[in-house]
Amino acid sequence: MHTVDVATPGGLYPIHIAPGRLDALAQVIPANATSIALVTNPTIDALMGERVLKALSGCGIRIVTVMLPDGEAYKNWETLNVIFDAMLGAQLDRRTVVVALGGGVIGDMAGFAAALYMRGVRFVQVPTTLLAQVDSSVGGKTAVNHPLGKNMIGAFYQPIAVEIDTDVLNTLADREMSAGLAEVIKYGLIMDAEFFSWCATHAAGLRERDPELLAIAIRRSCEFKAWVVSKDEREADLRAILNLGHTFGHAIEAGLGYGHWLHGEAVGCGLVMAADLSSELLGFPLQDVERVRELVTAIGCPVMAPKLAGIDQWMSLMQGDKKTEGGAINFVLMPRIGEAIRRTAPAELVARVIERNTV
Amino acid sequence: MHTVDVATPGGLYPIHIAPGRLDALAQVIPANATSIALVTNPTIDALMGERVLKALSGCGIRIVTVMLPDGEAYKNWETLNVIFDAMLGAQLDRRTVVVALGGGVIGDMAGFAAALYMRGVRFVQVPTTLLAQVDSSVGGKTAVNHPLGKNMIGAFYQPIAVEIDTDVLNTLADREMSAGLAEVIKYGLIMDAEFFSWCATHAAGLRERDPELLAIAIRRSCEFKAWVVSKDEREADLRAILNLGHTFGHAIEAGLGYGHWLHGEAVGCGLVMAADLSSELLGFPLQDVERVRELVTAIGCPVMAPKLAGIDQWMSLMQGDKKTEGGAINFVLMPRIGEAIRRTAPAELVARVIERNTV
Repeated sequence: MHTVDVATPGGLYPIHIAPGRLDALAQVIPANATSIALVTNPTIDALMGERVLKALSGCGIRIVTVMLPDGEAYKNWETLNVIFDAMLGAQLDRRTVVVALGGGVIGDMAGFAAALYMRGVRFVQVPTTLLAQVDSSVGGKTAVNHPLGKNMIGAFYQPIAVEIDTDVLNTLADREMSAGLAEVIKYGLIMDAEFFSWCATHAAGLRERDPELLAIAIRRSCEFKAWVVSKDEREADLRAILNLGHTFGHAIEAGLGYGHWLHGEAVGCGLVMAADLSSELLGFPLQDVERVRELVTAIGCPVMAPKLAGIDQWMSLMQGDKKTEGGAINFVLMPRIGEAIRRTAPAELVARVIERNTV
Repeated sequence: MHTVDVATPGGLYPIHIAPGRLDALAQVIPANATSIALVTNPTIDALMGERVLKALSGCGIRIVTVMLPDGEAYKNWETLNVIFDAMLGAQLDRRTVVVALGGGVIGDMAGFAAALYMRGVRFVQVPTTLLAQVDSSVGGKTAVNHPLGKNMIGAFYQPIAVEIDTDVLNTLADREMSAGLAEVIKYGLIMDAEFFSWCATHAAGLRERDPELLAIAIRRSCEFKAWVVSKDEREADLRAILNLGHTFGHAIEAGLGYGHWLHGEAVGCGLVMAADLSSELLGFPLQDVERVRELVTAIGCPVMAPKLAGIDQWMSLMQGDKKTEGGAINFVLMPRIGEAIRRTAPAELVARVIERNTV
């Protein structure tokens, strides 16, 4: 089993990575827990709900299952309230442990609900998509979307443990694998050129779900993210580099309406656009823009974004993004592969990049 | 000017207490703020909105006023969303400062919104009721109510400053003064028998709003609460003693429907019930139960609670309270005036106390 320890201001929590972790979930439920709120969706429940319930029943405490509708389109205020209604309706108390079983949407909402329920109960992340395993389950960001922007309403709240069962990746659709790999190569782009090259070398194997390659990719990704988060829990400076590709990506998701593109697909495409803008603004080598485009293609993500309603909509969607400060749009850009910085970009350059990378 | 410094895990923040503080609000808005979201209600706005806007205009930054409906009945999820809609609609960014101008309901909701908006922006409390000045503005508890219980959904989130203008107490209705004084005498009951006696001696003067007496009562109350909060930000043990009278009080508020009794009135009545239960369970002297009843009467709060739908409803409302753990009801009780402890109580004793103190 691989273990990555994540340091936060509130203390350490472990990420466990191994095949079969689902069956060991009872181990991470604290002895003084009075009940478990298992938050999941019907898709995940059909695939592994029974197995997880069996594992958790080892705790000998009450388990209340909270079923949420499946999809980013439901990552909102109303669905969050479904969790509160269910938990309060079952009279769950402050020693309840929330278990988030699902992808990033389930993790973000269950974590947010845990942060707010009676002003905070413990929670355990059990991410079931590659994207959630390498990204959203690490770092304590929880949130819901708002019609005016993604993840606008949220909290920083840390789990007591993250349990990653590498077996569950076999249940994923190909698109979801590709979306998750986009976040994996992002870590190479922002922090480690060698890891980027490793991903390029093993793109086919990763996409075909070679278990050994995936275990390495997940562990390395969690280590990168854990390192960044330990330095900077709030998204002040360092942590912002994790948003490489995300300003473009958010515009794609928001412009098409959440749920059309997978988040990771939008990020993958956003990485290409960020590389292109980096080339315009920071002299990021043109041949490396091509390497990024090739790897994003190789992992199966789109490299051309939708035109939406034109440049104006793009700009307004990006200005509404919460990384905006005082009107100017902040981007995360790369001087070279393996290094990322924050930079504001002139509107005409941004427009040119959007023009060039949309169909 | 009186200043009380409140220590929290995240750092110190000051409480300033003085006549005329409203006019000095610009002083506490940080220089790097990009905008101000002034959250208030029409009642407060009519009384002092213009004056506050004038004071804040000294910052030279954009001010967006968010008007909430007035009353505890609106302290809910839907009203919270009104704040988010307004702030996102105005494209306020992460360097926005939320200013909560109003009583406890405004403070709790504006603080909660500040905690969640883009995962946290700064906020300043400007409490305009005595209750908010001595209680809810100190300690970082923010929340909204749920149909199944009061303050069930919330967060711990600290303001950057609390500005208490003692002049504004002249705008309060008599009932609101009485409700605030209930929380003041609570501090005497849980921590300082001498302060309890001081309150008994000066009950008439406090009720008549003698400014010097009020300034002392507010400062002492903030000091007590700040001390408790500094020891124990989360409501694990010590902080729980601040809930003296609140388990009974919450049942009254929830049973009648929020907004019928003022929170402080329910707490005042709850103090008498807690004293009575303390006498049954801990030998709290009977003559001191009478002293509590007399002082609660003297400050103008009710000492008899409503019967509601009978004992069963009372018990179920108290069991639904979030201080419940694993089924048993926790109370805060007093061995003597000036000392409070947590204790679970047998249902038949609780029923007897409810029987005796309801009409």
